Amino acid sequence: MSIPDISKFNDDELVTFLNSFDTILTDCDGVIWILGTPYEGASDAIAAFEALGKRVFYVTNNATRPVDNYVKAMTALGYNVTKSQVVNPAVTVEHMLRTRGVDSKVHLLASEAFRSHMKEAGVRVTEPREPSALTLDAVKQHLRALDKDVGAVVVDFSMTLNYVQLMEVSLLLERPDCLFIAGATDHDLPVEPDITLIGPGYIVDMLSQFTRRQPLMAAKPSRAVHEVVAARCPQMDPKRTLFIGDSLPQDMGQGALSGFSTLLVLTGVTSREEAENAAPELRPQFIAPSLKSLVPALRRVSLAPGLQSNK
Amino acid sequence: MSIPDISKFNDDELVTFLNSFDTILTDCDGVIWILGTPYEGASDAIAAFEALGKRVFYVTNNATRPVDNYVKAMTALGYNVTKSQVVNPAVTVEHMLRTRGVDSKVHLLASEAFRSHMKEAGVRVTEPREPSALTLDAVKQHLRALDKDVGAVVVDFSMTLNYVQLMEVSLLLERPDCLFIAGATDHDLPVEPDITLIGPGYIVDMLSQFTRRQPLMAAKPSRAVHEVVAARCPQMDPKRTLFIGDSLPQDMGQGALSGFSTLLVLTGVTSREEAENAAPELRPQFIAPSLKSLVPALRRVSLAPGLQSNK
Repeated sequence: MSIPDISKFNDDELVTFLNSFDTILTDCDGVIWILGTPYEGASDAIAAFEALGKRVFYVTNNATRPVDNYVKAMTALGYNVTKSQVVNPAVTVEHMLRTRGVDSKVHLLASEAFRSHMKEAGVRVTEPREPSALTLDAVKQHLRALDKDVGAVVVDFSMTLNYVQLMEVSLLLERPDCLFIAGATDHDLPVEPDITLIGPGYIVDMLSQFTRRQPLMAAKPSRAVHEVVAARCPQMDPKRTLFIGDSLPQDMGQGALSGFSTLLVLTGVTSREEAENAAPELRPQFIAPSLKSLVPALRRVSLAPGLQSNK
Repeated sequence: MSIPDISKFNDDELVTFLNSFDTILTDCDGVIWILGTPYEGASDAIAAFEALGKRVFYVTNNATRPVDNYVKAMTALGYNVTKSQVVNPAVTVEHMLRTRGVDSKVHLLASEAFRSHMKEAGVRVTEPREPSALTLDAVKQHLRALDKDVGAVVVDFSMTLNYVQLMEVSLLLERPDCLFIAGATDHDLPVEPDITLIGPGYIVDMLSQFTRRQPLMAAKPSRAVHEVVAARCPQMDPKRTLFIGDSLPQDMGQGALSGFSTLLVLTGVTSREEAENAAPELRPQFIAPSLKSLVPALRRVSLAPGLQSNK
């Protein structure tokens, strides 16, 4: 049976769907915008959900933009959003470190935005150091002088990544009590039609194989993402939560892991055909061409009999 | 049945063994020296083989030392060796480019020694370029300005490796007519008892997965290594050639691929037990504790009746 398309629901079906959840977690890239270009109508759809009293959280695997920057960009596009509604791997890692009581230093292989987030959150981070030269002897001396009093290593996307940094991480992870946390594990990062960046997934895979260690996951799909939203929204009931996204492994995967309902929008990386043929656990429960496609029906049924408003 | 140990052969067995080959290919690290420290007696064993007229080639996967440097270091240790007897991935890549008629530029992700070798061999190589800054916009601009008139990309060990270099290679490999050549594909590179470097195998794997391309192999085990030795030694008969090494996948693997006899010495990365339990195609035909362990017997039988000298 094909996945139900919400944009084709009649009013009764739409009311039943809307009555089935109170909380929405939504991805950003491929859902509300793409590569910085906003999707027309997406903010209207979110506003219509919010008018019905649905709580909305924005859950992205992109920690290269500060949370403040998300709030600012989304506010400019007409979203009614505060910092606490935005969750990225930096937010999740901060939560993981706090709940696990890590108070020793944290070593980051991540973007400047990630580093700033950690510092502002009061996390003590190691400062980057360069070897005196890129010769074998200089690098060996540099690695031997590494401060190993580190409670966690975090690997996320970094465009300044180099070989010595990879070696630093691998030596820090020799201490079994040093946590190994992975942020985003995306493999392909399309940033332009003609440029797809090598994603942090490859770096995490490499370090995991080399160190023979499995990282704790801080990005979608992970228990940690679920926990950070639950901490911010104690009334969240997974059975009455909807995850909206464009990716099967990350977004539908988070839904499956968390026991959320799932809605795939076709404005990102996944086609209808791929969704229909997905493995059972990643197959979306609902589909829609776009957030925009839902706006007319959401407005039409907003006063429908039987529609519960959580406001 | 356990692998025959040559150091325990009686004179008849040793004479039969010695009469079975004319050419020796031997690994360096773990066989004649380790991490720069020479193995006592190894040069005596090689000299004894040469006294019987065996032709010797030194085949290493380490291209971070120039061939000249090998010759100099080995000469100082008492080896009678010329440049043409030393084969490393830079030598093999040079041969591959020449025999394939690649005359456009070659892009290297490799050590300075590798780069110097290519330049001295007359290969036109691209010059390293840095982006103006390590921001997304600067990197995108840098990648768009990349000279894509490149006939081959070569990936070997590089300690100066960085993210932008990985992206450069991945964009160059989008052109299907650009050759993708891997030098060494070792994963773990022990350089000190307390430091094992991340080997180029991880980088080759990453780029291969990201670009969905399989590289041509220029290091052991590969057809290319066989071809470069065969070109230098036209009388080489694989059935009358012995490969001596300390590694199962690389050295015994080269032996299996080339149809050579194989001798594993236990002075490197492989134990007798691992050798006994190896997959059939990687199981050595002969074993010896070390090259040194062969010296007394080689000297004893050097005038034995029935021993053929190829001198």
